[in-house]
Amino acid sequence: MEIKVLRDALAGQKERADEVRRRLAEKGIPMVNLIGGPGSGKTSLLERTLERLAGQRKIAVIEGDVETDRDARRLQRFGIPLMSVNTGGGCHLDSDTIERALAELDLGGLELIFVENVGNLVCPAEFDIGETAKVAVSSVAEGDDKPEKYPLLFREAKAVVLNKTDLLPHTDFDKRAFFERVDRLNGGLPRFEVSCRRNQGLDAWVGWLEGLTPSAPRHV
Amino acid sequence: MEIKVLRDALAGQKERADEVRRRLAEKGIPMVNLIGGPGSGKTSLLERTLERLAGQRKIAVIEGDVETDRDARRLQRFGIPLMSVNTGGGCHLDSDTIERALAELDLGGLELIFVENVGNLVCPAEFDIGETAKVAVSSVAEGDDKPEKYPLLFREAKAVVLNKTDLLPHTDFDKRAFFERVDRLNGGLPRFEVSCRRNQGLDAWVGWLEGLTPSAPRHV
Repeated sequence: MEIKVLRDALAGQKERADEVRRRLAEKGIPMVNLIGGPGSGKTSLLERTLERLAGQRKIAVIEGDVETDRDARRLQRFGIPLMSVNTGGGCHLDSDTIERALAELDLGGLELIFVENVGNLVCPAEFDIGETAKVAVSSVAEGDDKPEKYPLLFREAKAVVLNKTDLLPHTDFDKRAFFERVDRLNGGLPRFEVSCRRNQGLDAWVGWLEGLTPSAPRHV
Repeated sequence: MEIKVLRDALAGQKERADEVRRRLAEKGIPMVNLIGGPGSGKTSLLERTLERLAGQRKIAVIEGDVETDRDARRLQRFGIPLMSVNTGGGCHLDSDTIERALAELDLGGLELIFVENVGNLVCPAEFDIGETAKVAVSSVAEGDDKPEKYPLLFREAKAVVLNKTDLLPHTDFDKRAFFERVDRLNGGLPRFEVSCRRNQGLDAWVGWLEGLTPSAPRHV
């Protein structure tokens, strides 16, 4: 008898995800949902990306965190619209939260929105927040077995960024094995090998971002 | 009207955690709940620990994973009782699962149980699984801001292991800042700096483990 309540809640989430997608499609704004473990380098990736794009494109960022606005503060120097969303213990962002965050942003003229999800490889992959693309951010230091251990994210992603390639000589990370595992889950997934610390490999990633167009609603 | 159901569910979780604790206390077995992000090195820490202890102490390991039994397989060489628990998408272990895992283990003569939680800094910190001690496993590669960003784990932990110290020369990790942040959340928390890759710093950690005694039930 309780199943009805649960169903409605999930349906509401999907409806709101589609509402977000519809709104962004109308305005022509793609939204990229960055998902990765704690310390995989999502904020560093945003910093390097904004260094390249913030002068040319109108970009906004929604920063999801359990607590604190540390990540958002790291991006203040770019002078772009920033929303810091604290989940208060929650391990992922949902479409409800994103809808409310978008309501606070002036969408007019925006050309790209980034969402940095809570540092977590599990739950954020399960939630449709109305994004154009989920992007898996993985770090060399995490080990090459992560695609196999957290397969949903790599299946759902529209691109994978392997960060901290500067650590390759100092770890046992097997790059070929990593990408073979990714391919088995999601063949042909665009991949970008970057070192945010050394500022390497980012142009291809930025090129991929430039090609993004907002997607149409899915669930209706 | 649904609140009653939720309350009962949470109460049940706590009761089971205490049931687990009571059972382990009777048998004199401490249980250590290892919590850390994906790739922080929880399984490597277990490998190094078992290399030191598996010959002298009767140890069992419960390996929690979203999917696969990769981590459990890495420990097979020690010839100890191993339980692989797949959460099927779930982002943490709960006391219910642990109770069922313990029912499958022969507890007679066991002297220590490790639980390796799902790679996640958020939800595993919220759940009492009847452990003697939660241990936060953090990696140098994740950055020194993690205590501030995921404070609950560091507040709940009875020890913190900083792993991958071999990467210190290759990262911007500020060890002093990291431990100051830990101290602000949980003053005096025992800390262990280890490199599982280089097999360094593990004796103090093993010494701490040797001193553990099972805790009494909390919630009743």
